[in-house]
Amino acid sequence: MKKIIVLGAGMVGRAMAVDLCKDFEVHSADISEENLSRLNEFNIKTIKADLSNKETIKELVADKDLVIGAVPGFMGFETFKTVIESGKNTSDISFFDEDPFALNDLAIKNNITAIMDIGVAPGMDNIILGYHNKRMIVSDFICLVGGLPAARIWPYEYKAPFSPADVLEEYTRPARFVVDGKIITKPALSEPELMQFNDIGTLEAFNSDGLRSLIKTMPNIPNMIERTLRYPGHIELMRVFRESGFFSKEEIDIKGKKIRPLDLTSKLLFPLWKLGDEEKEFTVMRVIVSGMENNKQVTYTYDLLDRYDAATKTSSMARTTGYTCTGAARLILENKYTRKGVSTPEFVGEDENCFNAMLSYLKDRNITYKMHKTIH
Amino acid sequence: MKKIIVLGAGMVGRAMAVDLCKDFEVHSADISEENLSRLNEFNIKTIKADLSNKETIKELVADKDLVIGAVPGFMGFETFKTVIESGKNTSDISFFDEDPFALNDLAIKNNITAIMDIGVAPGMDNIILGYHNKRMIVSDFICLVGGLPAARIWPYEYKAPFSPADVLEEYTRPARFVVDGKIITKPALSEPELMQFNDIGTLEAFNSDGLRSLIKTMPNIPNMIERTLRYPGHIELMRVFRESGFFSKEEIDIKGKKIRPLDLTSKLLFPLWKLGDEEKEFTVMRVIVSGMENNKQVTYTYDLLDRYDAATKTSSMARTTGYTCTGAARLILENKYTRKGVSTPEFVGEDENCFNAMLSYLKDRNITYKMHKTIH
Repeated sequence: MKKIIVLGAGMVGRAMAVDLCKDFEVHSADISEENLSRLNEFNIKTIKADLSNKETIKELVADKDLVIGAVPGFMGFETFKTVIESGKNTSDISFFDEDPFALNDLAIKNNITAIMDIGVAPGMDNIILGYHNKRMIVSDFICLVGGLPAARIWPYEYKAPFSPADVLEEYTRPARFVVDGKIITKPALSEPELMQFNDIGTLEAFNSDGLRSLIKTMPNIPNMIERTLRYPGHIELMRVFRESGFFSKEEIDIKGKKIRPLDLTSKLLFPLWKLGDEEKEFTVMRVIVSGMENNKQVTYTYDLLDRYDAATKTSSMARTTGYTCTGAARLILENKYTRKGVSTPEFVGEDENCFNAMLSYLKDRNITYKMHKTIH
Repeated sequence: MKKIIVLGAGMVGRAMAVDLCKDFEVHSADISEENLSRLNEFNIKTIKADLSNKETIKELVADKDLVIGAVPGFMGFETFKTVIESGKNTSDISFFDEDPFALNDLAIKNNITAIMDIGVAPGMDNIILGYHNKRMIVSDFICLVGGLPAARIWPYEYKAPFSPADVLEEYTRPARFVVDGKIITKPALSEPELMQFNDIGTLEAFNSDGLRSLIKTMPNIPNMIERTLRYPGHIELMRVFRESGFFSKEEIDIKGKKIRPLDLTSKLLFPLWKLGDEEKEFTVMRVIVSGMENNKQVTYTYDLLDRYDAATKTSSMARTTGYTCTGAARLILENKYTRKGVSTPEFVGEDENCFNAMLSYLKDRNITYKMHKTIH
């Protein structure tokens, strides 16, 4: 039986370990005993370990067939690098900021397959675009995505399904898009627009900086944009906070004490944004790919609506992110995806068998991307 | 020529000194040379002085016929007390929290007339109620009042025409009302309601703690309420801030530093709420007094809309507050209002001659209360 280690047993890491343990020998490593204890009921070997230590990671991965990376973003790049240095294939959702392609030569040299950003978005939107980009001349790519609580509680109507610090980063960092073949930036939270979604109702989309690797890997596509979804009104509140200085990272003097306003704002907002244990949430995504196919103007639209799974107490964000990552891990283990070097998910989507295998793997887990094709 | 000293040369103190200097020998004292320098063009004697020092106040008032109190609220009570101890008649708009009637016996003993809270609200609303309360059986008193900028700037659409700290206090302190003869409290910012005002448009009223002395002096009136006016939407933002903890006075730990969230919020919001030099603003007030008069159910409604005076660069808040105070000062100097002890403005309004003199004095300065009487 093949051996897998999942580095990180947070919300998503845990869901991945549970998903894989039916068919593989799964090890799960984390510094938090509380996180690990939640895996006790499953056939998973847990290891308390400090994953910020390179040597620890090298020891942990040495006898494994594949490594799943699920550490916090700030540790992501170093962990990914150490795994590649160790010569291990890996599938990673750590969402780090550094350029993954800086490790491409090393991964090729070590003859391994290392897929990063392989979640829902980034992840499945890249896979969808990668698939169609090989089969048509894509002119426009739009990704709309949000993770939201089922219960709308005044005033924010929001709970963060991942790190709330990353959420605030999304509200402040300028959004990079591609328009007419040029990279442009627009302010975060800009261009709010109300849109309807089946079974959800009206949501509000705003510009966010989520294209990530696509800006580099898809130089041929003239128009690409990512927008985030929230319940209407949330964006306006965030704009008020940002424009009034509450998200500022510049220290200001408060009666002799130097404070970053963002630190106080985080302290007050994060408890309000904490997703409760067993709190119902959902993931909504719409991916639109348009262009010329067989001399016809076509548009492919993929819609996802995935909800908290009460039976296994697994959040939708963990399901949609984690199962994409474990699906890719299987493609590697089964020698179905064999590209050496660092891959982002658009590379995985290029191959028809891989693309169909991913959709099928997710559908088996009740995560269904509904495709709609329009010929204009 | 009678001698008057104005203690405090802030926005309102300055307007009062200028108003009085045509007919009296006016002295103006302040710790700020900048404030005093703005009086240079007028026939006013300026004195740089620390008004937090009791002895300084005693020396300053010793040879004066009347004292105008216009210091910041936190210094108000001590200043008012020192003036009474000095045996000087006074008309005061310092807006302090302490009970003024605690000084009543001292004022009677010293045979002086000391009127406090004699601005626009508190002030003119009390005068109007005091007048009608002597002439009918009042069942209901409502005061709606707001000081607002002419230009509505996103997101707050607000500039503080007086201390912004007092404004935030108004957004947090529970509002005391009288309902069916009982004192009740409602949360600040509660019961927002959209209302129309001629020449302004739609404003939003909310409960605020502004009845002050009326709760004590009008035990016979079963229903009394004060509400503050803002442009629509401001109240919702303030509720978001308050309910998220940004107005809290409890210290919290921010990376090892103890901070009161209110202090940071004040630091960020107050510059945004600062009324610009020569920025146009207005004061809007509606006072409604209902009850039985001559066996008929009647309602008196007084409407005020006063705007920034560009010719003299005097804000409406300074005009409506300051000229009420100087009008009362003249009543004292001309022996038209002679009640000994501490008076709140409802006592001034009781006398028909004083009431008419006040309305006439304000009308001479283009501050017009339009009265409308309805017999039901």
